[in-house]
Amino acid sequence: MPTAIEFGAGLIGKLADHVKALSGTKVLIVADPGVVQAGVVDRLKKPLEEAGIPHLLFSEIEADPDIESVEKGTQIAKSQGCDLVVGVGGGSSLDIAKAIGLMLTNPGNIRDYVGINKVIHQGAPVIAVPTTAGTGSEVTIWSVMTDKKQKLKLSVGSPYNCPTLALCDPELTVSLPPHITAATGMDALTHALESYVNKATHPISEGLSIQAMKMISKSLRHAVVQGENVSARHDMLVASLIAAMAFNSTRLGLAHALALPLGAHFKIPHGTVNAILLPEVMQFNIIGNTSKYAEIARIFGEKTDHLSEREAAERSVHAIRQLKNDVGITQTLSDYGLEEKHLDMIVEEAMTSGNVPVNPRKPTLEDLKNICRAAMAK
Amino acid sequence: MPTAIEFGAGLIGKLADHVKALSGTKVLIVADPGVVQAGVVDRLKKPLEEAGIPHLLFSEIEADPDIESVEKGTQIAKSQGCDLVVGVGGGSSLDIAKAIGLMLTNPGNIRDYVGINKVIHQGAPVIAVPTTAGTGSEVTIWSVMTDKKQKLKLSVGSPYNCPTLALCDPELTVSLPPHITAATGMDALTHALESYVNKATHPISEGLSIQAMKMISKSLRHAVVQGENVSARHDMLVASLIAAMAFNSTRLGLAHALALPLGAHFKIPHGTVNAILLPEVMQFNIIGNTSKYAEIARIFGEKTDHLSEREAAERSVHAIRQLKNDVGITQTLSDYGLEEKHLDMIVEEAMTSGNVPVNPRKPTLEDLKNICRAAMAK
Repeated sequence: MPTAIEFGAGLIGKLADHVKALSGTKVLIVADPGVVQAGVVDRLKKPLEEAGIPHLLFSEIEADPDIESVEKGTQIAKSQGCDLVVGVGGGSSLDIAKAIGLMLTNPGNIRDYVGINKVIHQGAPVIAVPTTAGTGSEVTIWSVMTDKKQKLKLSVGSPYNCPTLALCDPELTVSLPPHITAATGMDALTHALESYVNKATHPISEGLSIQAMKMISKSLRHAVVQGENVSARHDMLVASLIAAMAFNSTRLGLAHALALPLGAHFKIPHGTVNAILLPEVMQFNIIGNTSKYAEIARIFGEKTDHLSEREAAERSVHAIRQLKNDVGITQTLSDYGLEEKHLDMIVEEAMTSGNVPVNPRKPTLEDLKNICRAAMAK
Repeated sequence: MPTAIEFGAGLIGKLADHVKALSGTKVLIVADPGVVQAGVVDRLKKPLEEAGIPHLLFSEIEADPDIESVEKGTQIAKSQGCDLVVGVGGGSSLDIAKAIGLMLTNPGNIRDYVGINKVIHQGAPVIAVPTTAGTGSEVTIWSVMTDKKQKLKLSVGSPYNCPTLALCDPELTVSLPPHITAATGMDALTHALESYVNKATHPISEGLSIQAMKMISKSLRHAVVQGENVSARHDMLVASLIAAMAFNSTRLGLAHALALPLGAHFKIPHGTVNAILLPEVMQFNIIGNTSKYAEIARIFGEKTDHLSEREAAERSVHAIRQLKNDVGITQTLSDYGLEEKHLDMIVEEAMTSGNVPVNPRKPTLEDLKNICRAAMAK
């Protein structure tokens, strides 16, 4: 993981120093309109203006951004001579910023690099400034984009796609509304948990996953119900980053395999769909890694001293379902329009995901449908 | 931490591929005579010879290597046109190999770079192949060398001093005798534990420290008393690496502050002196971070359910002392010739260490003497 990490309140005031240290002479700021409206981009521009560093803004980014945004942003950066990209926002902004950084030095179209380890050259320097605590995109190898015409999620994964620098300032997350705090926090949890139980994990990743889950167990509820609680916001921003470090080398599991097609076809926010799926995926997976699910139960505060390992593992499902409900995610997949007739298409797309082979229990198409059915009903 | 990590049995058979991937055309192998004698260097040479990659061996390295070894090795590498260094062995060999890598691209003498972040340029590529599970030098920023004339330990710390690649093959550690397995394992434990309780730690490092301590708690005894237990050897090699990742960004504590002058003046093996000091340092530090010492007690299997936090913390000292004794480290500092009359000199040198300011309890010179006295008596 080649990304340098800086963590602390007020860090973005030092942005110009970091741009200079990375030899940036003209900056493309990539941010979604919500981040612009919230005044965060103005806070980034100030130090750049004071230092006389030219910069321009690219903000044609939606939630679940279309892959065409990358082309547009790259054309602007190239035509204006930008040599450094600052991405600011949630996963969408950061993923597009990273992909633009790649396309400043790599030939062709971003579609040429969909998959893992297909990128040829190190990209232009990218500074990632997260404003949500969920995706961990500030340290991941991944950019996830949507092909809106074909209703597909496309992922580019490469060590060259890791940002050069993650500037993590918990103050930027304080104004996030509860429902986004909840959804992004559950996304971070899904990263840590799916990575922890999967077949590709290893001791370094396991240690990071456990640490992320402990911090989420301690602080997600507080971050949601006390938005101004800077300590809880800090914990969540650290936890989402650590969870991303954990899954960078392991991939994830069935919740993420299903979340991508469900998100693309039914416009369910990524964190929300993960949160809805996670307890059902856990229930399905338990017999694939019982001891780890028992450990998850303990991390989330369940008393397991007098339980068998299997009983303890079952308590993990209860604990995560309670957390999901506590933070206000009580929707079902049916609420987003998913019906029985859509399931064939969804599970066939999900089965092609690289997250399926590492899942602790090998699923059939019918298993995936049953997980969706459970997540539609409750 | 820029080092790429490869882990697995039989990995060194692929050495030539890695040398080529790093564009190495002539290799300097740096190994101590013990490693040469054990036949490990021959196993490294084989793939290089098969691939037609020229190489030469530099093995003028002792335990606690003199800083002059770096000059000698660098001269040989330069005069022979080596552009890649392979270090193989314990901490001594790896530390010297790393320093030679630095001096192939940096001007002057290695002494110019003693301290932290003083190195100017990225060094030549270095592949580190550990044969002990202790120092974690295969991923650290540090090279520790001895100035034998002045009886000083000199440390060079820089991200440029991290190896390019760590090739970790647990089979190489199977033949380590029990006393070296014990001492190096206790060194790894001291890294994880001192980093975990110190004032510079942060959540990423804490997660790694806990993971390393769990693995050491599970596997150090087995690695010592069942040398051929590859699973325990694997755990210890992973744990020492993870502990080093944990302390790279945090420094350590009083055991390491005292270990360097004690090692330099009394020729006590580094792991042994850490093991002797650690319980005494823990006893002194408890009131600086009681909750973390209570957690350490639980990691090492102590039952703490019905204890106060302070009582639980005290159990950590018991647990670590028992581990130290179980693995056969029952010597005292007196056994190595330390006497009351030496203490002024030792504690004054220790107090200059960068490990003192991060220790969870600020010590006086008299406190350091009392720690030494306790470690002389038992």
